[in-house]
This record gives sequence, structure tokens and C-alpha cells, in this order.
Amino acid sequence: MHDSSRVLERLHELAQLGRYEAGIDRALATPAERAARDRFAAWARAGGRTLTQDRVGNLFARRAGSDPGAPAILVGSHLDTVKTGGAYDGAYGVVGALCALETLDARKIATLHPLDAVAWVGEEGSRFPLGCLGSAVFAGLTGVDEALALVDDAGIALGDALADAEGGLLRGLPQREPEPLAAYVELHVEQGPIMERAGMRLGIVTAIAGQRRFRVVASGTSGHAGTVPMSIRADALAAAAEIVLALEKAALEREAVVTVGRLVVEPGATNVIPARVTFSVDMRSPDDAVLDALERVLDEETREVGARRDVRFSRVPLERRAATPMNRDLREAIRRGAASTGERTMDVPSGAGHDAMCVAAVAPAAMLFVPSIGGASHVGEERTADDDLELGVEALAAALVEIDRMLGGAERG
Amino acid sequence: MHDSSRVLERLHELAQLGRYEAGIDRALATPAERAARDRFAAWARAGGRTLTQDRVGNLFARRAGSDPGAPAILVGSHLDTVKTGGAYDGAYGVVGALCALETLDARKIATLHPLDAVAWVGEEGSRFPLGCLGSAVFAGLTGVDEALALVDDAGIALGDALADAEGGLLRGLPQREPEPLAAYVELHVEQGPIMERAGMRLGIVTAIAGQRRFRVVASGTSGHAGTVPMSIRADALAAAAEIVLALEKAALEREAVVTVGRLVVEPGATNVIPARVTFSVDMRSPDDAVLDALERVLDEETREVGARRDVRFSRVPLERRAATPMNRDLREAIRRGAASTGERTMDVPSGAGHDAMCVAAVAPAAMLFVPSIGGASHVGEERTADDDLELGVEALAAALVEIDRMLGGAERG
Repeated sequence: MHDSSRVLERLHELAQLGRYEAGIDRALATPAERAARDRFAAWARAGGRTLTQDRVGNLFARRAGSDPGAPAILVGSHLDTVKTGGAYDGAYGVVGALCALETLDARKIATLHPLDAVAWVGEEGSRFPLGCLGSAVFAGLTGVDEALALVDDAGIALGDALADAEGGLLRGLPQREPEPLAAYVELHVEQGPIMERAGMRLGIVTAIAGQRRFRVVASGTSGHAGTVPMSIRADALAAAAEIVLALEKAALEREAVVTVGRLVVEPGATNVIPARVTFSVDMRSPDDAVLDALERVLDEETREVGARRDVRFSRVPLERRAATPMNRDLREAIRRGAASTGERTMDVPSGAGHDAMCVAAVAPAAMLFVPSIGGASHVGEERTADDDLELGVEALAAALVEIDRMLGGAERG
Repeated sequence: MHDSSRVLERLHELAQLGRYEAGIDRALATPAERAARDRFAAWARAGGRTLTQDRVGNLFARRAGSDPGAPAILVGSHLDTVKTGGAYDGAYGVVGALCALETLDARKIATLHPLDAVAWVGEEGSRFPLGCLGSAVFAGLTGVDEALALVDDAGIALGDALADAEGGLLRGLPQREPEPLAAYVELHVEQGPIMERAGMRLGIVTAIAGQRRFRVVASGTSGHAGTVPMSIRADALAAAAEIVLALEKAALEREAVVTVGRLVVEPGATNVIPARVTFSVDMRSPDDAVLDALERVLDEETREVGARRDVRFSRVPLERRAATPMNRDLREAIRRGAASTGERTMDVPSGAGHDAMCVAAVAPAAMLFVPSIGGASHVGEERTADDDLELGVEALAAALVEIDRMLGGAERG
């Protein structure tokens, strides 16, 4: 079998695990997700890799390096999905990592550094309430015991779920021991429309966007829709509408996206002036200074609109995540590797979060994107063209060689 | 007992019927509402009135006129409430009519025309799905059999409910026969803040607002809140927000009120761009031409915003009610009567609907308002100052004399 078609075969195989009518549901420590980890292990063994596993179930498949003392270069992504997931988000980066190592095998290319294909667990946070669970534990951002104590909606602790024969840890694998790291690279589908619209097939991620989420409440004054003159109303919905548009305008003027995705009107009757509107604000930018500016806009606009309309605004921060710039040297090495395929690359920010965010806390990290058809993501219909999937693996293999060379040179030069 | 305090006593007595923690719930043909009609009949009989009843339960209490051939002047309102009603909406106009007739008795003032205090049934439409039910049937706008066939949420037909001993028609009353009408006058609480803010205690209604209601759907394109750039979004909520503000602006520039009281965002998740927003539009104006203009604004704005944002708008008309101007001669007669109390009057539109809308189809009609404290309406806490309630009855009695004089002169002059 030609290497490049192997990535398609394996993705197809994984896509059967957790499949239902709306897509793929493969949450951490379920039988379907465990089966995906089993497949990873089987492919890794067949490729001659050395497998290790850590206490939360992250799997590492090592291709040895020629320098016994060199730290490993990690390459991978995650195997779990959201509840209505697709075949590529996460799975592509894991399968792509294994295939890239096999490409180097086939071409008899040795690297100085060991190359570890990694399958992180629980990136999506769709069962246990923590995103990037496996990589956060790996990077020491979340304690392993804290992670194992997380409970799902049914009250089952992760520790118990991982001890279960059906969905738990793989049996008989050696424990991964802590060790120094040289770098981390993650191959992923873009999950957005930027590359497709630009007609580009390979994207080098500049940064993973920082994110701030708020719940905002606008409290005005209710009243009869027929009897209260417009001039004396304190309509909570009209006030909220101004904020929605002001945030949109502020985002358009900056390198950012702002979304009001949830908005609830109370009492919510046709003939009653809205008394209270509760809405979410989700701000993302690869630049934390831009997020600061957007938060100031939210602050100033709610103050101004609130005073003018006699509507009281309050807000609660729900989430705050700093932007994670990708390592510049790694980006350049990936760009050189990608260039060897003959395809041009473009710089692209990642609006979605990824394991690379967490791993960046303990190693230089970077990401390589391939386009998503129609920008669709987190839906059963997410698609990437077969040619692009194959190209991404080819570029990743070349990038690993470039990274190995760069790091080897830097360490020994 | 002094006449003026009688109105307070009687309102207090009615307020016990259907009372619960959130206000008063006195829906048509329930035991509480039947009890209110019983009270009306008892008070009317005690005052020497002749009672009649029609097939849907409207009650008429006649004070005879001195001209046996003269058509009757009707004066009244309704006894039912919304589910969270207060003590004054409707009840005040019914009790006020009885009290005004008694004021004329006490002052030994004869009128040429018979004066019929009327208690309309089912104005609020809170049980059977038709507002102004009793007055619509009376005016021939709704067939009596059609009305009796209406069913409530429990599947009970109005005809059966009115045949029931607990909530049905009063027993042993003669049937009201169709006859010519001279005029209709309705005393009511304003249900809005205009008079209170103007410091005025008596309002002459210029017109009952026409009303148009729509359900509007904005269909945009969903997507990941982190990965779709602002510049290519088709956010249904941002589009709807523009319409909310455009309608508000259009209403502020005209003699109208426009309310978006209901707005639902789908899918409604913090991290998903809104795909679809469904919202209500409630437009009211005493001038149908203004409603036409507002509908054109809705049309133009949805077209412009929809094209600019690539969001598809559709709308369904839910309700359309023409404005009902009040009779000019009656308004002037009421103004003269009201002036005799020493209080000034102001012209005021009625944003809410009233039985006078229906009766206006078969007789000259007009309305007299007293202020609502804080403009509160359709809530248990609706209040009008005792002094204002008493003043309204006094002004109504004087207005009836003026109307009788005016009509008598016109008919015989």
C-alpha cells in the first residue's frame, strides 16, 4: 500500500468508531474511544514503534533517533470527538503523525531525535469538564490526581472510567516516564474557511487565539407593548442589540472574532417590553492586547448605552485563556519542509483551541493546517479533500526532518 | 354611603374574586368571573336597574330615559381579567358605569335616553381565543354561534361553559333584544404612564391604536465562533439586532410604538454563530397610515440588511387590526362633562385594545381614562389613586348628561 493512501484508510477505519446518524461521538474513556486508542496501538506496533502510556491514557509511539541522548520531538493530536464530531478533527493529526513516521521509514530517513507520535486523550472536553485534558496533564498544567477526580454528567470519575475494561487504559503497556522534550508539532484541519477562500492547501499557524467569554445581563424596565411611549422605554433588548452591533464593529476593525451566540429575552412575550436580556460574548484573538481592547469596548459600550437607555448592565467572566503564539523557529522549519512538497504555504491563526496550547507550556510548539471544505467543523459533515489530507502528511514528514535538522544543529552547533 | 366611596368598595369586593398570590385571575365563564357577574346583577337590582342578558353573557342594567322612543346610551367595560390581572382593568369601567347612574339618581337628573350600564364578557381573551368576545358578538363582528363554539385549552366549548351552573349564564334574566344605539362610552384606567407623567387626571381617548403583529425569521449561516472571520459571517443575530434598532428608530420618529418582545436564537450556543433568529414585531399607532409606513420600514430594512449581510428574512403576519378613532362629538361632550369637575383633560391615544373598538362598529364610541400609577398594567400591582377613581366616576356621570343633551338636541333639533 502506498503511504499516502494509508492515511485515508486509517481515517476511514477510525470514522466507524462512535459513528451514528449525526456524525461521530467518541468521548474519552468510552468503548468507541478506547477502540480508537487500540487501533493507534496496533498501527504503531505494526510500524515497529515502541509504545508507552501515561496515567490518563495518552499514548506515545516512538520511532528511535540516531542520537541516544537527544530529547524527543512529539507529533500528534487527539482521538476523541465532540458529540456531533466528524472524521478529521483530531484523528487526522494522530493518524498523520503515524503515517509521517512511516514515510520516513519507507524513505530510510534517520533523525537525530526520537520522534514520538502522540495520541492525546480528551481534547474536546465532551465528557469530562476539562478541554485538552491529556495534554494539560502531560504539561503539568493540571495535576494527574485532579484530572482523575473529574466526574462526568453521570457522576463517573475519570479514574474509574480509565480503570474500566470497556473504555479504560490499554493493558500491558509500559508507563511513559517524564523526560525532556525538543519540540511539539500538530497537524490539524483548519476548521474554518480562511484557507479554502485563499485557495491555499497548507497553513502555518501563527498563534492559537486567546479567548475571553462573558455572560452579560441587561436589565431594563418591562411594560405593556401598547401603552408605554417609545421615548420613556428602557428596553433591555434594544440595549443588547446595540452591544451586539458595537462588538461586531469592534471585531471587524481588529484581528479578532467576537460572537454573541446565546441571547435570551425575558419575559419573552410578543406584547411585553423586554425587561431582561442575558447574552454570551465570546472574544478571540491571537493577540492578547486586542482582547484587552475588545474588553474595554464592551466596558465602554455597556456603560454608555446603559446610561443613555436607563438599562443596567452586569457581566460575569466565564473563561479567560491567553493567546499562544507558535514558536517562530519551528514555524520556519515547517515552512521549509512544506515547501519541499511544491505547495505554497500561508500564515493562518487558529481560532479554535488545540493540544498545542498546553504543550507550548513545556516545549516549543507549532501547528500545520490543511483546509476544511466550507469551513465546516464540529459537525458530522466536516470534510477535507483526500489530496489535501495526503499532502498534509507529506508536508509533515518533511517538516519533521527540517525540525530535526534545525534542533540538532542548534544543540550541537 | 357617599356615592364616590361606593366605587372603591365595589372594586375592593370584585378584587377578592379570582385573587391569588400573583394578582387576579378571572377568566370568562369560571366561577370567579360568574361571581363578578352576580355582583354586577345584585348591585344593578339594588339600584333599581332593569337587567337583561344576551346569549354570550353580556349584562345590561338599564336606567330608563324620559323619552320612551330614544335609543340607549351604553356605558361600561368588562369584568374578566388576564391571568395575572389587577383590580382595575375592566372592572373599574363596569363599576364606574353603575356608580355614575347612581350619581344621577342621587342628583335626580333625568336623561332623555335610557342609560345602559354594560358588563361585557371575555374582553381579555385569556380563556377562549378571541379578545373583546362579548362586544364583538354584540356588534355582530363575530357570530354568536361561532363564539359559542370556541374552545379553551382544556377543550371545553364556550357554549358548554356558559351552560354550566358554576361559571355559566345568570339564571332567570330576560334576553337582551337587538335595538338601536345612541352611543357608547367606556371608562378605563390608562394602563400606561402618559397621563401620570403629564400630571393629568382625566384623559379623553383620541383613538384606539391599530395593531399589526408579525413573526420574522432571519436565516444566516452558522459556524465555529473561533474560526470564521468576521468579514465573511452571515450572523442572523447581528442582522436581527439591526432590525430591532431600525424599528425602534422608525417608531420614535412617528406617533407609534413598536416592540420586539420575543426573540429566539438558534442554535443558541456560546461558541456557535447564530444560524437563525425568530422574533416578534408588534406595531401600534392611532393612525393606520403610520402603520403602513412602519411596515414599509420593516420591509425595506429587512431587504437592505438581508442583502448586505447575506441573511434571508421572511415574515408572517399574525394579527392586523385597524386603528379606531373615537367619535369627535362624543369626545367633546365628554370633555364638557369632565370640565364640570374642575379638572383639566388631556387627549391621549389608547395603545391597548378595548371593547370600544368593537362597539364603534355599530355606534358612536368614546373613552375616558384615569391614570395608572407607574403605568403598570396586566399585573397584580396595577393601581390608580382612589381620588382619581372617584374623579373618573364623577366626570363620567357629568359626561353622560352632556352626551344625552347633545344627542337629544341633535335628534330633535
